[in-house]
Amino acid sequence: MEFTAQQIAALIGGTIEGNPLETVNTLSKIEEAKPGSLTFLANPKYASWLPLTKASIIIVSNDIVTHQSISTLIKVKDAREAFSILLEAYQKLQFNKTGIEEGARVAKTAKIGKDTYVGSFSYVGDNVIIGSNVRIFPGVYLGDNSKVGDNSMIYPGVKIYHESVIGKNCTIHSGVVIGGDGFGFVPNTENNYRKMPQVGNVIIEDNVEIGSNCTIDRATIGSTILRKGVKLDNLIQIGHNVEIGENTVIVSQTGIAGSTRIGRDCLIGGQVGIIGHLKIGDRVKIAAQSGVSSDLKDDEIVQGSPAFAHFNYKKSYVLFKTLPELLKRIHDLESKIEDRATKQIS
Amino acid sequence: MEFTAQQIAALIGGTIEGNPLETVNTLSKIEEAKPGSLTFLANPKYASWLPLTKASIIIVSNDIVTHQSISTLIKVKDAREAFSILLEAYQKLQFNKTGIEEGARVAKTAKIGKDTYVGSFSYVGDNVIIGSNVRIFPGVYLGDNSKVGDNSMIYPGVKIYHESVIGKNCTIHSGVVIGGDGFGFVPNTENNYRKMPQVGNVIIEDNVEIGSNCTIDRATIGSTILRKGVKLDNLIQIGHNVEIGENTVIVSQTGIAGSTRIGRDCLIGGQVGIIGHLKIGDRVKIAAQSGVSSDLKDDEIVQGSPAFAHFNYKKSYVLFKTLPELLKRIHDLESKIEDRATKQIS
Amino acid sequence: MEFTAQQIAALIGGTIEGNPLETVNTLSKIEEAKPGSLTFLANPKYASWLPLTKASIIIVSNDIVTHQSISTLIKVKDAREAFSILLEAYQKLQFNKTGIEEGARVAKTAKIGKDTYVGSFSYVGDNVIIGSNVRIFPGVYLGDNSKVGDNSMIYPGVKIYHESVIGKNCTIHSGVVIGGDGFGFVPNTENNYRKMPQVGNVIIEDNVEIGSNCTIDRATIGSTILRKGVKLDNLIQIGHNVEIGENTVIVSQTGIAGSTRIGRDCLIGGQVGIIGHLKIGDRVKIAAQSGVSSDLKDDEIVQGSPAFAHFNYKKSYVLFKTLPELLKRIHDLESKIEDRATKQIS
Repeated sequence: MEFTAQQIAALIGGTIEGNPLETVNTLSKIEEAKPGSLTFLANPKYASWLPLTKASIIIVSNDIVTHQSISTLIKVKDAREAFSILLEAYQKLQFNKTGIEEGARVAKTAKIGKDTYVGSFSYVGDNVIIGSNVRIFPGVYLGDNSKVGDNSMIYPGVKIYHESVIGKNCTIHSGVVIGGDGFGFVPNTENNYRKMPQVGNVIIEDNVEIGSNCTIDRATIGSTILRKGVKLDNLIQIGHNVEIGENTVIVSQTGIAGSTRIGRDCLIGGQVGIIGHLKIGDRVKIAAQSGVSSDLKDDEIVQGSPAFAHFNYKKSYVLFKTLPELLKRIHDLESKIEDRATKQIS
Repeated sequence: MEFTAQQIAALIGGTIEGNPLETVNTLSKIEEAKPGSLTFLANPKYASWLPLTKASIIIVSNDIVTHQSISTLIKVKDAREAFSILLEAYQKLQFNKTGIEEGARVAKTAKIGKDTYVGSFSYVGDNVIIGSNVRIFPGVYLGDNSKVGDNSMIYPGVKIYHESVIGKNCTIHSGVVIGGDGFGFVPNTENNYRKMPQVGNVIIEDNVEIGSNCTIDRATIGSTILRKGVKLDNLIQIGHNVEIGENTVIVSQTGIAGSTRIGRDCLIGGQVGIIGHLKIGDRVKIAAQSGVSSDLKDDEIVQGSPAFAHFNYKKSYVLFKTLPELLKRIHDLESKIEDRATKQIS
Repeated sequence: MEFTAQQIAALIGGTIEGNPLETVNTLSKIEEAKPGSLTFLANPKYASWLPLTKASIIIVSNDIVTHQSISTLIKVKDAREAFSILLEAYQKLQFNKTGIEEGARVAKTAKIGKDTYVGSFSYVGDNVIIGSNVRIFPGVYLGDNSKVGDNSMIYPGVKIYHESVIGKNCTIHSGVVIGGDGFGFVPNTENNYRKMPQVGNVIIEDNVEIGSNCTIDRATIGSTILRKGVKLDNLIQIGHNVEIGENTVIVSQTGIAGSTRIGRDCLIGGQVGIIGHLKIGDRVKIAAQSGVSSDLKDDEIVQGSPAFAHFNYKKSYVLFKTLPELLKRIHDLESKIEDRATKQIS
């Protein structure tokens, strides 16, 4: 598809400097752009590329000095946001299937909203309710009594167990499993384990994004809950009865054990482990690969396994690296003391 | 569905105190229960909830003092176990499909037992043998010559490669991959890798539970084996030719490299890594996020990366946290020694 | 299937010592072999098994002394390689389906090469191009405009998003997700996150193997790239815009964050985390469970979280274990100094 500077400026509310009929047919980074490319410039650090880039059109933030540019410019308040709006519009143009595709299997008792797409080999169970403008890609499983809100995207091969509730404007990537059994076993007299049935569910609120191959276990009783705006990267484990507060962001391969409650606006790094039954406050930051084994108050920043104050971890770790030198200093002190003791005796 | 105290007491062999015709239609925790809820009380710590809870019926262990209760009680020996039995019965009521669902694909040479369900879009390969009362949910793949024992549950989207053997009463959650190739490559003369074909299989014995998105690789030659009663949480990696002993429990995101043998009744925490070709004894406990790089004897408890005795790790870690203070003490000692040396010279 | 020593020797170019009509019908390790087994002996360490093994036929490297053997031998230059060639041939015999299996869904605009297999419930989108002799197992998703090169194997349930490019001779195991959105969000004024659309793609070059349930995110703009011969174990996370150099090997559960570039011939252990926007050189080795947070030069070997020189990590960790003893030595020094000070005063 080809677009003119004029069409783009209209879409993002920008002002053109250069040729309004200049056309582009691809997207590039400013440093890699070829003729026919659209790019953007929001960070003044990259302004030196302006006279060098071969991009045909550049979306530029108003506060960037542009007199050196030879490309057609579209000036906006925030170039990054404008570019992002543009890409979204472009993505919507690319995918516009609706209706139930041949080969899908939808229970008679299921209800499906307007302009919704259900791909081939998707299985929609009894009493499932799917909103409007939802995209269920091929090979998705929606268990009995589950719900998906308006405008959500469920990518190929997502498995959503019975009774799960997914909000509006959610994006759930391939391979995600929602509502698998929590890990609950009770040792019995014969020294093996009796399974604790898991009869709760999972609730995902609006505007949540869940990366590929994450696993979100159903509650034993009650609900495992991801609040509005939570963002999960890939391969993350969320245990049964966990609750994660609004707009908390978690990086890939982190695991959160059963019944832990996490506050809002937290930033949790990759490969973090958090044990069960904890209370983590709001706006907490946890460094990558940390292991959290006790409650954390609002605004704490922690690192380590087990984790403690981030700043103190850094100080201790610097000294960990110099332990051989510290050992030598202790050894020297011992020699001096010994030496002096010997002298005094002699 | 609605149940009376009478019906429930009959099912779990309990004695009613209160109204035998009291009804419930949902399950709750004692502290969150509303009228119409069934709950249980096994831990005396929660007994103070007895006069406060709004639950209509409570299953209570015999040894709990109940005179303050206003709800209908059902008294049993072990309330937790009784509740668990009840939930299991309830789950079975909820799901009772049998037969081969429309859209499934079953090879002519496959054998399928009595009262077994095979969901839509499931693929059952040549010479597959499935027992009785098995539930194969939609979108499952069973490769040629694989077997699934009686009463096992295979959740949607599980992929079981050819020759794999699954025992009786197993539960395998969505996204699990059983029998993928082991990670075996031999460097060749051109400095790249030649794949070592993986012609062994995977054997899962009876009563094993495997959490969502785990990966269990097939053996190079021979078998990767999970013994009776093993319980795996989600996102766990089991390498080729690994053997895991009876009733060993492993928490999520742990990885076990090729050819390692793990004993019975072990407890392995989350995000643990165990290198290949080790022998781990029986009843070993490994703390979360540990890295195990040497054999462990029966009953060892370890922590750290690399892991050593748990108790010693804790002591060292306490001192790691105070390294800045230790540094100061060394520095003070150096000053004092220096100071005294100067005095003696002067 | 049954094979004679003669047939096997012809296939691998070996010389028979013993009965050319000896037959085998299974493969075993030398220490576990029963009559009817084929095994191999490449490592002199196992030569003591020669008079003990019950294997009917043994493939042996020329340099091994074999006079004690009672089995039929096939002598070759490199027994391990010969065995591997044999296994490959055997695997090809086992699986020889071609064509589009009933129940698959292939877009009219897709192009499929000669002798290629597309299994049931696989979904091949618009303009997809699949080469010759490719095996697409059941339940695979190939998004619009994606490509798969000749001789590649795509195991059941792999999800490949639109625009992804897979090379020749690649093996992609079940549950892998290729081309999911990168994890890119921009905080906005209402303190929540606006998604950065991800419009790049993923490029997998030739001879790449990707283990079960790995996730490879598409680039924001441009491409996430795995170069020729890269080998990934299971459950690995590759972020958006990452590039991994030729023949680099990565062990399971490792995660690499966005825009990091990794050189060729690297060996990266299991459960490693590498933060975003780094440059890792060629032939770098990273120990398991390390956390890499800064650039690494060619040939560096690192360990720790954060990682530093492997050899120094080992030295520091030895001292970490002895911290309680170091504390005691500091304490003793303090006592002696104190003691002496007291003496001098008195």
